[in-house]
Parts: sequence; structure tokens; C-alpha cells
Amino acid sequence: MENFDFHVTTDIRFGYDRLDELPQVLNTFGKNVLLVYGGGSIKKSGLYDKLYELFNQNDNHVVELAGVDPNPRIETVQKGAQLCKENAVDVVLPVGGGSVIDCSKAVAACRFVSGNLWENFVLKRSYNGPALPIVTVLTLAATGSEMNGTCVISNMDAQIKLGVHGTSLLPKVSFLDPTNTYSVSSYQTAAGSADILSHLMENYFNATPGTEVQDEIAEGLMKTVIKYLPLALKEPDNYTARANLMWASTLALNGLVGKGKSGSWSCHAMEHELSAFYDITHGVGLAILTPRWMAHILDDDTLPKFQRFAEEIWDVKGEEAKRTAEIGIQKLYDFFVSCGIPMTLPEVGIQTEENFEEMGQRAVAHSSISNQGFVPLHEEDVVSIYRACMSETSFV
Amino acid sequence: MENFDFHVTTDIRFGYDRLDELPQVLNTFGKNVLLVYGGGSIKKSGLYDKLYELFNQNDNHVVELAGVDPNPRIETVQKGAQLCKENAVDVVLPVGGGSVIDCSKAVAACRFVSGNLWENFVLKRSYNGPALPIVTVLTLAATGSEMNGTCVISNMDAQIKLGVHGTSLLPKVSFLDPTNTYSVSSYQTAAGSADILSHLMENYFNATPGTEVQDEIAEGLMKTVIKYLPLALKEPDNYTARANLMWASTLALNGLVGKGKSGSWSCHAMEHELSAFYDITHGVGLAILTPRWMAHILDDDTLPKFQRFAEEIWDVKGEEAKRTAEIGIQKLYDFFVSCGIPMTLPEVGIQTEENFEEMGQRAVAHSSISNQGFVPLHEEDVVSIYRACMSETSFV
Repeated sequence: MENFDFHVTTDIRFGYDRLDELPQVLNTFGKNVLLVYGGGSIKKSGLYDKLYELFNQNDNHVVELAGVDPNPRIETVQKGAQLCKENAVDVVLPVGGGSVIDCSKAVAACRFVSGNLWENFVLKRSYNGPALPIVTVLTLAATGSEMNGTCVISNMDAQIKLGVHGTSLLPKVSFLDPTNTYSVSSYQTAAGSADILSHLMENYFNATPGTEVQDEIAEGLMKTVIKYLPLALKEPDNYTARANLMWASTLALNGLVGKGKSGSWSCHAMEHELSAFYDITHGVGLAILTPRWMAHILDDDTLPKFQRFAEEIWDVKGEEAKRTAEIGIQKLYDFFVSCGIPMTLPEVGIQTEENFEEMGQRAVAHSSISNQGFVPLHEEDVVSIYRACMSETSFV
Repeated sequence: MENFDFHVTTDIRFGYDRLDELPQVLNTFGKNVLLVYGGGSIKKSGLYDKLYELFNQNDNHVVELAGVDPNPRIETVQKGAQLCKENAVDVVLPVGGGSVIDCSKAVAACRFVSGNLWENFVLKRSYNGPALPIVTVLTLAATGSEMNGTCVISNMDAQIKLGVHGTSLLPKVSFLDPTNTYSVSSYQTAAGSADILSHLMENYFNATPGTEVQDEIAEGLMKTVIKYLPLALKEPDNYTARANLMWASTLALNGLVGKGKSGSWSCHAMEHELSAFYDITHGVGLAILTPRWMAHILDDDTLPKFQRFAEEIWDVKGEEAKRTAEIGIQKLYDFFVSCGIPMTLPEVGIQTEENFEEMGQRAVAHSSISNQGFVPLHEEDVVSIYRACMSETSFV
């Protein structure tokens, strides 16, 4: 186990009927609120009206940043930061999933950043400056952004999607009400769960020795997601399923399973290029890439961890080691298929391989996968993995 | 899953060679430090000298509260609070295990409490007042006190041991260096691990439905302890073993496995009477009680959880349900025996049953085990469990 710091101060309010606590929370920061949300699903679900009832009772001055895209854009961040300056915003309130929260983190910081925000904030990758306080209301179990200090922002003109980390970006309070995810579509529920699983697998498949605590927690959270995603798809308003998916999503990326390990995430680096070039759903991109990545790096060195993954997560028994590992990868693939996730790139609109070489170069350039990955990946590895995603695959 | 708040702000500095960061941490609170420690093991290990080297470089004014007992006493708390007042202490620095940290929490709060501290602090059970900031240097993997807001204080005259909880009691920073546990004796290492396992089992055996995240994490941490305790006993300076035990101990009681569940802890309530009457080692008391408690409450209703415990933790396979559960309990008992823990009350000096009825009354009176336990326990149940601890037991 490597040395690490763990300091995650977000105040989690988990459960149903907690929103009455929101006014008191907002008031600790001030009356001027920037409400950030996405495509309007919070209006359909009734959450928007509930919020305004609370704002009105509470004499909040609310400014809105609406229409935040999945893979949130630097232009939206710019607009939000400007709104904060013009309206003396005291607190940023994202109501949505990871994209809305990520965008809000960038807005909260960029309120204090001048000049070109892409250059002066995103390209720095690490932010040490101040930020407005952030209070989140989560409506999608996926990214874990509600309890960490990272945001991922896209520049669609330059086709670049990059993460920025900063202590001040950590939300002060996050409201996690599983009933707010009842109305999430099957597709987004499955994609969100694929994102959770990816966060767990990116940390689990890692070369740092002696990290049993982290690995056991990762396995436990993976098993929880695999148990409850099918139930949430079948019964969208099953509280137990939604609650376990939500809490698993938060814990999957708050440091519990990643701290104490060094190394680089491979699939996220490759997926960020897919999203940047083709604006596909992040979790779906990860689901497509992960089994092919696993098959690509399976060798004598990585075999023990893949064998453990197959045995502990997929209950594969009685086969020799390599076949056990392969069956595990197949079961992951089949699980994603069974949850309705499109598992090839053509199914998400990527019909040709024309950009793969450039994307491979960029995946390596924008990350440390070529020297710090579980298995280092070079441009040709990335291209080969992208190519394997072009058609249905069998791993056994 | 029940509604819950999770807000654990302790700044964890995990790993070796982190103590150079201590002066900077202390300085954020002030120059006047109350150093709290136990029986002097930190002098033997060299930690005491290292600390004074840092204090001297840093111009700290240090007052000492030394000789804190296991099962820390209210008299020691009184003395420490007085020292804080007389010396304008800015920050309390416990260097030790759970007893030293618990005592320090009480001292940090009682600095601001007047009158009879037993009545005005401990008997309140919940503390909403201010406390001096607490920075811990952990030297024993056991209680989890380094990352929660609870302390347990004893009144040996009245033979009462009670827990107090308060937000301000949460340590600000905790230094978790596994090498500081290399010198812990086999007996204390095993007792500490029994305490960790007990925290996990007290939360795991619980009637709240739909808590898969918490149960999976509890199982993962149990498996970690069961894997690494024998290695730590065999190789006291095995870093991986000590690191995993230490991080597991912290996570076992920081809310991760207990939040989202309601109910009462049964074995701790019974053990607190053992410690209060006989001043035995807390973790050993828990190890002795737990398998007998399990056998006492095993019935058709509790069977599924005990079966899962046997299968997941002890890999019991191919037996019918009740026998599976019984083998699981036996394996827990055998594990404690194999780690050198005395597993009967006579072995820890309790030769007669004379106090059991009074202890049974008190265990019920001082806790909510009679109405909120996994299975409610009344006075006669507690006495019966104490009696079962008087001799070696077979569970299958």
C-alpha cells in the first residue's frame, strides 16, 4: 500500500424527503444561488417546482444556468462564471448528474479565474485557487462527482476532454435521494452503472501490491452494482435498488478504492477521446472499451488479478486459470449486453476507424497510460483496442 | 436502507515517514500542545523522542498527560481538562491507541465543561458543545476512534463504562503510520483485531433490510482482518499486514458500515459491563462474548444472515443451512483461539458468576439492546451468554 491522504469533507444527506433541509444549508453560504441543471428532466419529475417552492419560502435570489450538456462544455462554464460575477452568486447548486455537477465545479472555480478559461483552468489540470461553495442534489447514480474534487470539461472545437482536480471543488453538501433517480431511463441507468463499475475496475486492476482493503471494498461495490442494476431496470422505483446503486456510485470515486494505489486509469483515458470526437455517452463508451482492454492486457503477469475478478465477482469455479479469467471477461461483457448497453462502436454511431490513430495519439498524450497504466498502453495498443470495439466479440 | 448523514471530516495522513508534517498541522491550531499517552510504550519505541525533536524545532509549549489507562477513567479526564485550562492549551495530541484517543476527546470537550464531569459530560451521552482541536498519532489498530466522534469513558468507583458522542470530538487530523504498530505485542494485536471484527459484526448482524453496500464493505473488511492478523502475529514488522489492519480498523467504525442501519450493538453493551466490573481488555471481552451471543440468537429468523456470514467469510460450503451457520460460528471461535486470544472468562480472571445478574441488569439499563438489538436481549439472555463464556464451547 502506498502512502496517501484521505480528507473528504462533503456532508452527505442520504435518503428520501431530505430537501426541506436545503434552505438551511444554502443560508449558511448566502441568499444568491446559481441553479445549474441539464435538459429539463428535473422539470418533468417535479423536482424543479419543489426547489422553487423552497427558494420562495426562503427569499433566495436564484439565477439559472440551464441546458448543461452531457460532456459539459467550456462555453457553458464561461457563461456560468459570468452569471456568478454579474449576480454576486454566493453558492452554486447543481441539480442533476455528473455532467451538471462537473460543470458547476468548473463554474464555481472559474468565478475566480480570469482570461481564457480553457488555458487558465482546464489545461492546468490541477486547481489551487478558491471556488464558490457547491451544494449538489444528485439525480443520477454514476460519476461520484458529488463526493470528490474532480470535474471533467470538454472543448468540442478542439475535440479535447480533460479532468481538473482541486480541493476547493469538493462539494460542501450533497443531497442523495434515491427517489430522484426513479425517473432515470433504462439507458441512462445502465450507462451510469457501467460508469460506477468502471471506476471500481480502473482502481482494482492496478499494480500496487498489498491493497487488500481497497480491493475488497471494490469487489463489494462491484457485486452490489451487479446485483441491483438488473432490479432497477426491471423496477425503476425500487428504493432498495436505487439506494444501493446511488451510495455505491458515491463511494466508488470518493477515494476509498483508489487511495493507497499509484498508477493511471486506462479505459477512461481511451473513452475521453471517444467522447471528445463523437460525443457519445461516457458510461457506454467505458462499457464497450473495458472487456476489450481486459482481453488485450491479459497475460501471465495480469492473470492472477483477472482470475480473482472472475472468481470473486462472477463466481467462476473449476476451470484452469486462463480460462477462468476469460470467462470472467465474457461475463462482464454479457452482463452489459443483458442490461441493454450497446456493446460495439457502430451501435453508438462510430462507423469508421478514420480517427482512431489520432485518438490513440491523444489518449497517450493526455494521460499517463503509456507509463503508469496497470499495463502500459502505447498508441498502437489503444488503436488495437478501439478496432476490437468495432464488432461483437467473444472472449472465451 | 435507512436515511443517514455521513460527514466525516478527519484529515487522514496514512503511511510511513509522515510525522514531519506534524508541526505544520499543530501550528494551524496553536503552539500550546497537550501530549496524551499511555503506559510509556511510545518511549520504548522511540516515538516520544521523535516527537520532542519536532516540538523543539517548532517552539511548541508541551504539557503532558501520561499514564492513560486502558478503559480510560473519568479522573484522568478531569486531570487533563484542568491541565488544558491552566496551560491555555490550543490542541490535544493523543499518541496511542483507542483509550488514549478516547481520553483525549473527553479532555478536549471537558476543557469547556464545568462542575461534575461524569454527570455533566459522560452521563449526557451526547455532547453538542465546543472542544479543543484533536490531532491523533495512532499506535494500535483497533477502536477506530481516530476517525469518529465517540469516546468511551469509565467510572471504576461506580463500575460504569459509557460512550459519549459529539461532532466536535471528531479528530481534525489523524496520522496513521503502520510502522508505529510494529512494536505492539501479539496479545494486543490480536485483541485489537478482535475489536475491529466486532465493530464490523455488530453492524453486519442487523435487521435493517436493503443495506448491501454496507454489508459488502463489512464482509470485505472482515476478510482483510482475517487474512492479515495471522501474518502480523507471525511477522510483526510486515508492513502490508500492519497497513491493512490499520486502515481496516479506521474504516470499520467511521460510519461506512454502520450508517443507513438502525439498531443497537449487543456485544459491546455486554462487554462494557465486563470491563467496568473486571477491567479486562476490551477486544478480548468482545472475542469471548461474540460466538456465544451468536449461538444464543441463532434461530429461523437470523439463520439467513449467519449462513451468509459462514459462506462469505469462512467459505463454508455444501452443508445444510443451520449446520452452515453453526460451522461459521465455530470457525470464528477457532480463529480467535488460533490467534492466542483467551476464549473463556476464567482465563481473564473472572472465576465466579456472582456479578452476572447485576451486570445483566446494567447491560440492559445502559443500552437499547432489549428493544433495538439485532435480536432483543433481556437480562436473562445476557446472564445466559455470560454463563456460556465460563467454559470452552463447541458450536457444531
